[in-house]
Amino acid sequence: MEKFELHILGCGSALPTTRHFATSQVVNLREKLFMIDCGEGAQMQLRKSRLKFSRLNHVFISHLHGDHCFGLLGLISTFGLLGRTAELHIHSPKGMEELFAPMLDFFCKNMSYKVTFHEFETQQPVVVYEDRSMTVTTIPLRHRIPCCGFLFEEKQCPNHIIREMIDFYQVPVYELNRIKNGEDFVTPEGDVIPNSRLTRPSDPPRKYAYCSDTIYLKKIAEQIRGVDLLFHEATFAQSEKARAKATFHTTAAQAAQLALDAQVKRLVIGHFSARYEEEQVLLKEAASVFPQTVLAKENLCITL
Amino acid sequence: MEKFELHILGCGSALPTTRHFATSQVVNLREKLFMIDCGEGAQMQLRKSRLKFSRLNHVFISHLHGDHCFGLLGLISTFGLLGRTAELHIHSPKGMEELFAPMLDFFCKNMSYKVTFHEFETQQPVVVYEDRSMTVTTIPLRHRIPCCGFLFEEKQCPNHIIREMIDFYQVPVYELNRIKNGEDFVTPEGDVIPNSRLTRPSDPPRKYAYCSDTIYLKKIAEQIRGVDLLFHEATFAQSEKARAKATFHTTAAQAAQLALDAQVKRLVIGHFSARYEEEQVLLKEAASVFPQTVLAKENLCITL
Repeated sequence: MEKFELHILGCGSALPTTRHFATSQVVNLREKLFMIDCGEGAQMQLRKSRLKFSRLNHVFISHLHGDHCFGLLGLISTFGLLGRTAELHIHSPKGMEELFAPMLDFFCKNMSYKVTFHEFETQQPVVVYEDRSMTVTTIPLRHRIPCCGFLFEEKQCPNHIIREMIDFYQVPVYELNRIKNGEDFVTPEGDVIPNSRLTRPSDPPRKYAYCSDTIYLKKIAEQIRGVDLLFHEATFAQSEKARAKATFHTTAAQAAQLALDAQVKRLVIGHFSARYEEEQVLLKEAASVFPQTVLAKENLCITL
Repeated sequence: MEKFELHILGCGSALPTTRHFATSQVVNLREKLFMIDCGEGAQMQLRKSRLKFSRLNHVFISHLHGDHCFGLLGLISTFGLLGRTAELHIHSPKGMEELFAPMLDFFCKNMSYKVTFHEFETQQPVVVYEDRSMTVTTIPLRHRIPCCGFLFEEKQCPNHIIREMIDFYQVPVYELNRIKNGEDFVTPEGDVIPNSRLTRPSDPPRKYAYCSDTIYLKKIAEQIRGVDLLFHEATFAQSEKARAKATFHTTAAQAAQLALDAQVKRLVIGHFSARYEEEQVLLKEAASVFPQTVLAKENLCITL
């Protein structure tokens, strides 16, 4: 199976602790890297991860709070010092370019590469990235400022050809692409060989959903139904439910309830409030609702 | 003796490594904290140092390169989240406020405290801070952009009174302050008791000089002569002397030569280029010129 991994670079919340960096993650899909959020220290953590800087061409920012984007200037600056030439694309809610452009103009002049901002509205799902093998779609969230998550979806691969059957029916080479895409084969004699005899289905496409800072939002379940992995913030425990609501955050139990409702395969929770010195309390709470839960931690890598 | 300590928070140069954070230090003088430079990750390192955030009211920025100031937004933001009320003063070369104000207005609105910028010219030494017990003066440096170091100087304390002699000569209490400040005592009989019989000198004032990014600049020696501790950048080894000059940096041997010329007591070198995986080569080079040299490293604390 092609590589599809999630690397946690940082999973703390706004207040730094000695245990956690601010939010940042990297999705590695077939050796293309996609950064999600870029809190302070993201570049140091990226260096630690041993992921190749040059494979990263897209950064997706969920919202314009400092703990999700203060690492961007350092990252961009470092890429410049390393002599990067490939364009870097920053995808974010509206307002980022206006804020960051003057800083980039000053601190990152004469760089060997270009930084391009792509801004989007956060009210409706929008496809913000697409290539041959996957799409990235925003997941509308509700936080104190415009905010969204991101849904990474592999595209369905063509069927696998069963070599023996292709030989047996003497299927000509020029027919192969059509057959991979599901068509039947008609022999010169007019016999129809059903596609299911010639191919076996490829692996089902995998999906990763990243839900950034948000109040508990049941309706997310529709958009992320059945994903292989869900990251959801779990800033607080259920004992701080009122506080979670007031600050537009989610509790561990609520994140787990969403995972259950959406029938996801696995849940990873993060964005822990600095008040929890021992995060097992959050894990326990979530796992009692949705057992396939793990705690995010720095340098954790999860294979989808 | 009153506390006078230097804490190294980060001592790498522009490119992050897994070994070093970007430049930042804290001077602790009698439990007042003064931050020097604020590279990315400074707030995390400050947290690790266990120094009290609330004791920090002044940040001195040597120059506007990202690796010396990208941590400032996160620091200011975190102080806000912690409910700080005391004003925070940022001292820097000209241009910082204009650059950072729009970011602060956006990311750090409605904070419970005020951030005030104080900007200075870097061509001549300027006293940028003064209180009862010390002064901070800029040290003009030569880098690719306006840049300076900082000289932290304790003020001379009054002499210590020798209690037995005061009693012996029956010196009245109202004379004590004058005597501490060096005056002789005249008895009611008109006898002059020289000050040296009544007091012993207080400890000589201590001095710390921080020399940030700069080309090797011999004339610095005049201003920092005899300091107890000199931090000097040593980005490169002598084998990269040409490169050091071209990029307006200093070699380890040059930093040591300056320490020798200035007759400082101790030298700590830092701002190591990412190319040196083994910094012992820099230490060896410096120590062969100036033996009282140590390597900076994260979380190192030096008592003056």
